[in-house]
Amino acid sequence: MKALKLGASGPYVDSSHCWIERPQEARIRMVLGGVCATDLELIRGYMGFEGVLGHEWVGVVESSKRPELKGRRVVGDINCPCGSCAACSKEMGNHCPERTVLGIMGRDGAFADYFSLPEANLHLVPDNVTNEQAVFVEPLAAAIRILQQHHVSPTDRVMVMGLGRLGQLCARVLALTGAKVLGVARRPDSLAMLTDGIEGALVKDLMGQPVAMDVVVDCTGSPEGLHTAQSFLRPGGTLILKSTTHDLPETIRPSSWVIDELRIVGSRCGPFDAALRLLGTGAVDPSVLITDRIPLQHGVKALERAQQADAMKVLIAPE
Amino acid sequence: MKALKLGASGPYVDSSHCWIERPQEARIRMVLGGVCATDLELIRGYMGFEGVLGHEWVGVVESSKRPELKGRRVVGDINCPCGSCAACSKEMGNHCPERTVLGIMGRDGAFADYFSLPEANLHLVPDNVTNEQAVFVEPLAAAIRILQQHHVSPTDRVMVMGLGRLGQLCARVLALTGAKVLGVARRPDSLAMLTDGIEGALVKDLMGQPVAMDVVVDCTGSPEGLHTAQSFLRPGGTLILKSTTHDLPETIRPSSWVIDELRIVGSRCGPFDAALRLLGTGAVDPSVLITDRIPLQHGVKALERAQQADAMKVLIAPE
Repeated sequence: MKALKLGASGPYVDSSHCWIERPQEARIRMVLGGVCATDLELIRGYMGFEGVLGHEWVGVVESSKRPELKGRRVVGDINCPCGSCAACSKEMGNHCPERTVLGIMGRDGAFADYFSLPEANLHLVPDNVTNEQAVFVEPLAAAIRILQQHHVSPTDRVMVMGLGRLGQLCARVLALTGAKVLGVARRPDSLAMLTDGIEGALVKDLMGQPVAMDVVVDCTGSPEGLHTAQSFLRPGGTLILKSTTHDLPETIRPSSWVIDELRIVGSRCGPFDAALRLLGTGAVDPSVLITDRIPLQHGVKALERAQQADAMKVLIAPE
Repeated sequence: MKALKLGASGPYVDSSHCWIERPQEARIRMVLGGVCATDLELIRGYMGFEGVLGHEWVGVVESSKRPELKGRRVVGDINCPCGSCAACSKEMGNHCPERTVLGIMGRDGAFADYFSLPEANLHLVPDNVTNEQAVFVEPLAAAIRILQQHHVSPTDRVMVMGLGRLGQLCARVLALTGAKVLGVARRPDSLAMLTDGIEGALVKDLMGQPVAMDVVVDCTGSPEGLHTAQSFLRPGGTLILKSTTHDLPETIRPSSWVIDELRIVGSRCGPFDAALRLLGTGAVDPSVLITDRIPLQHGVKALERAQQADAMKVLIAPE
């Protein structure tokens, strides 16, 4: 079977990937996969991962110990917790220290003809949600995670910095609160993809201006993003960090956080059920962000394409 | 009149300080002053301040346009906001960009025979609160500020790192929530001053141990404190920064905040009225932290003494 893998010398397509079934888990056939910034970070050495890439996907259950799942369209939580540690007993399985993470840590990912995932992780995809929408459930849930961690009021002034794949989704989800959302990017074409009444501005046009946001979401993926994002906050404001950039040392001044009483919130994976509801009602339609669809056998090209500035969401299809 | 001043070449006592009365403000006679870590930071160049030091004090109103205040014992908020900007209109005067701060920014402080402060800043000291307690109102309010910014639950595991002047107060205030509070310091004598059922531990005994706190308050005043404090947090935990250390660049890894979904909260000045209530009921008695009482004329010695490891709160008295 085919799989897009990351090895010590980089990514490659293995046409004879030796897949070992996990009988305690569901066997899933990938229908569509999505390339994420985290995949690109993994290639640069983040997490030291080697194996099959891919954690954004929609698939069909091929076999399962729960026969009612067979043939059903599913998406799935990427964190596989141990189920018995202190974090798991507090329903914080996403932070289980023994967890594996699909295509990121200790577990082969979805960019393959088949892969395995525990049944407990699976969510059925409603009939009115297309594959091209469902493939966005994982990053859409990550955007929704912000609202689990921080109360965004309808009267807050909200900025999303960095309008790549995740930033576009964060801006759309935050706009659902009724808050005035400003999307900020370096390139005009990123602003052009904004919908749902979200305003846009180029970062260069804001530098030195008196911008005083209640909430700034940093989706820049760059170490400098933290500095710039902080400069756009009002005193007492909240900075949400969504970027899992490669661990670069960075020069910051924590005393400014104290003087201005800033609040900094690291934010990662979110609730799949809420993401599926928003897709089902049409409140968010991320499929407009798709710019490319590349067969799995050309998976390395898909990863290369996702690094280009004019690529938004690059999909990987089995054929 | 005498005043303990900070000049370009360091702190000195000016016996003939030329005091210019502000007729729109109250004239206050200092009864007791307290040396704070921020004073020591100012001497090292923090904020570029020059002038009369001192922002922890209890005094008596000598003259005021509100005659009912004359002769009354008072403490006072140290931030003097403009009253008309966007921050002030949202009752966030502590973050007014035009503000002056007593003995810290743009305004002479309290370590003098007399000083000025707007009547709006003053709080009457109840009769049952001693001068030796009231002089702690400013740092006690700063400790209480934590509970304005973050909900500490009675079942949270809370650590206060750094048991100097402010850390001792933070530990006592947080213990009032019913939460289990662990005070952590480098020196055994700091642990010995803990009261109110607060447990103590040496930081060296915790390194490498599986410590997973819900809340860690960093009162270390050192750039390394942030790193160590973070290592003691559980995933999803909250780090409260109380230290206004001099702006030293620091190497940190923001991606770890994202992966572990940490929450970092800068925390500064707090509510004087709440602090006076806790002193009035006896729920907190900070006077046990007083180790020295030095006359104003020897004010430079008071600053030196406050830098010694075995000094806790050093008071400055007019005579």
